[in-house]
Amino acid sequence: MEERADALRRLRRTHEEAVLAVLRAEGPRSRARLMRDTGLSRTTLFAIISDLMERRVVVESGPAEYGPRQRGRPPTLVSLNPDAGLLVGIDLGRRRVRVAVANVAREIVAAASDDTADADEDERADLAIALLRKTCEDKGVGLAALEAVGVGLVGVLDAPGRRRRAVERLEAAFGVRVEADNNARLAALAERVWGAARSAGDLVYARWSVGVGGGFVAGGRLLRGAHGASGELGHVSVDPAGPRCHCGGRGCLEGRIGVPALLDAIAARGVRLTGTDDLLDAARSRVPAVTDVVVEAARTLGTVLAGAVVQLDPERVVVGGDLALLGGLVLDPIRSAISELALPGTRRAVDVVPADLGPAAAAMGAIALVLTDRDAMPPPRLR
Amino acid sequence: MEERADALRRLRRTHEEAVLAVLRAEGPRSRARLMRDTGLSRTTLFAIISDLMERRVVVESGPAEYGPRQRGRPPTLVSLNPDAGLLVGIDLGRRRVRVAVANVAREIVAAASDDTADADEDERADLAIALLRKTCEDKGVGLAALEAVGVGLVGVLDAPGRRRRAVERLEAAFGVRVEADNNARLAALAERVWGAARSAGDLVYARWSVGVGGGFVAGGRLLRGAHGASGELGHVSVDPAGPRCHCGGRGCLEGRIGVPALLDAIAARGVRLTGTDDLLDAARSRVPAVTDVVVEAARTLGTVLAGAVVQLDPERVVVGGDLALLGGLVLDPIRSAISELALPGTRRAVDVVPADLGPAAAAMGAIALVLTDRDAMPPPRLR
Repeated sequence: MEERADALRRLRRTHEEAVLAVLRAEGPRSRARLMRDTGLSRTTLFAIISDLMERRVVVESGPAEYGPRQRGRPPTLVSLNPDAGLLVGIDLGRRRVRVAVANVAREIVAAASDDTADADEDERADLAIALLRKTCEDKGVGLAALEAVGVGLVGVLDAPGRRRRAVERLEAAFGVRVEADNNARLAALAERVWGAARSAGDLVYARWSVGVGGGFVAGGRLLRGAHGASGELGHVSVDPAGPRCHCGGRGCLEGRIGVPALLDAIAARGVRLTGTDDLLDAARSRVPAVTDVVVEAARTLGTVLAGAVVQLDPERVVVGGDLALLGGLVLDPIRSAISELALPGTRRAVDVVPADLGPAAAAMGAIALVLTDRDAMPPPRLR
Repeated sequence: MEERADALRRLRRTHEEAVLAVLRAEGPRSRARLMRDTGLSRTTLFAIISDLMERRVVVESGPAEYGPRQRGRPPTLVSLNPDAGLLVGIDLGRRRVRVAVANVAREIVAAASDDTADADEDERADLAIALLRKTCEDKGVGLAALEAVGVGLVGVLDAPGRRRRAVERLEAAFGVRVEADNNARLAALAERVWGAARSAGDLVYARWSVGVGGGFVAGGRLLRGAHGASGELGHVSVDPAGPRCHCGGRGCLEGRIGVPALLDAIAARGVRLTGTDDLLDAARSRVPAVTDVVVEAARTLGTVLAGAVVQLDPERVVVGGDLALLGGLVLDPIRSAISELALPGTRRAVDVVPADLGPAAAAMGAIALVLTDRDAMPPPRLR
């Protein structure tokens, strides 16, 4: 019986999403028209609309001005509530915090970022709260209509039951639902919904910066994993007898190719660099000690990605993060490794492409995370 | 507009599955009662039932004998067609072909297997066809009511557009829909639907025999991949500079730990074994040269599975295939590798368990492959 209750809950959710998809695609609609468009019975449809109105997701508006005149009182129309449904995406990144606000039509109505200046995660949450309030004030966006907040966090998430303090701070500040996920996985989601993998049902995304993370999309859905930690490419061991990683494992990819490891390897070749921007500049200037290290690291990433391609059979591999800004210098060794190691006998095409959405990807993915009707959604536009 | 058409097709499929789930769980129902149970409108429900009747999935039966008498003609009832919906699962394995037949209530009504005697895939298809016909005749099962055939094939599948001749032979023999998938992935599906991972939403399955294969379940669904090749654990490279594999890659896991490789490594230690059964016997007798090789191979498999656990975050790892019959001898090294390399800092429990379903798993998975309402399905029973 529990299975049946589950099935009916899922069915109701599907019905609700069908109603919202029609309203979003077609604009205001009468109840009679919604019955025809969705195939739902009067009873079912009216119950769903009354629930959506209670939650202020839809509102009733005046009768239609257009269309043939009918006998009796013209029908009232149901439409999405323009004053509701603000969604906020926050990325509490290592180097910058980013915020983005989308309205009910999924247009980005405000966005901003700020340096973290070595703040810890709790401090970064406070920074994001202040940044969001100021940005919304500047743009005249009222946060009273806020519906939910998505937040991207650095690192491996714990079991879903254990919430981080940063999430609690955001809940206390805004009084709405807050959902958290790893920020690399959120970037993968954003690339899938709006970016380089928009049409791809099966996607492997890698994010290569100070840390190395990733996210997988299969059959159009972001994989979550049993503990919310799917996609952790950075902690695949490339050397089971190698040095201990902060995750407790040994020889993890992140310890081999994350920016700190690259800076160390480059320093060992006599070139001192001070950080990511410095590294990117030197690589773009084709300093040999730097390009050698970067290319070797890209090949190592390519080997791990080849394994992911063999296991997950994606149609596309998207590489994001700071290092992806180096283009062919890092993408070509990755492409080689994949074409040499990932089932070359099958002659499948697996595109390896750079990410589209740039550094705001995780904040946009955080918005996608709290959307309930992701599939029916048009791409966001800057207003 | 295409997205909307897609959404409506999905909605219709959901409606159809809801109707079938109610009929399966509750037995025959009037249309009026089905409207209440599913929340569908009269128009939608009647269209779905008329389509299901045309496809002979449901039938109309006499009026209900029970319940309060109502005015007018008592309603006819809609029920699942007991003479329809036979499903056949076939596993064209390297060493044996296996067939299984399930009725509309998902009871296994016939099952058999036969030695392949080194037949190629086309010959194995013919063998399976003859075996199935004979078994059904012996059991009095009429194949006229056959609805679909699922078939498990060895090796990496090509792009979905290209069909194998074995599939064409089965279509010609039975004149029904035939769906094919890799047999290791089908075994994973069977373990998820009926076996060792029945309650697990996220599962990594490895099948270790002559070849090495696998399958992944995420969020309750078997991952397919963009080209139908998700789960190919056997072709993850464990040595990018290693020997060439038949897949075209280098240093693949299968070339390192598949039974032929194990026999070679054991022969190099002076012990000659002739095949899988011989290998299993020697390992069970704890012949040191044999157990050393097997344990080292299990550790290598464990390293690859640790990578899969990091990337996919399953709650359970299921190990099947002939080598899994050795129990702790192979499972313990796998457990060690996973607990050392797969995010030990997070202290998550990942069960590593042997497969439940034995050698018929792939044939059962082939039945699950052609089911359309897999989630609503009770476990199969031998009748």
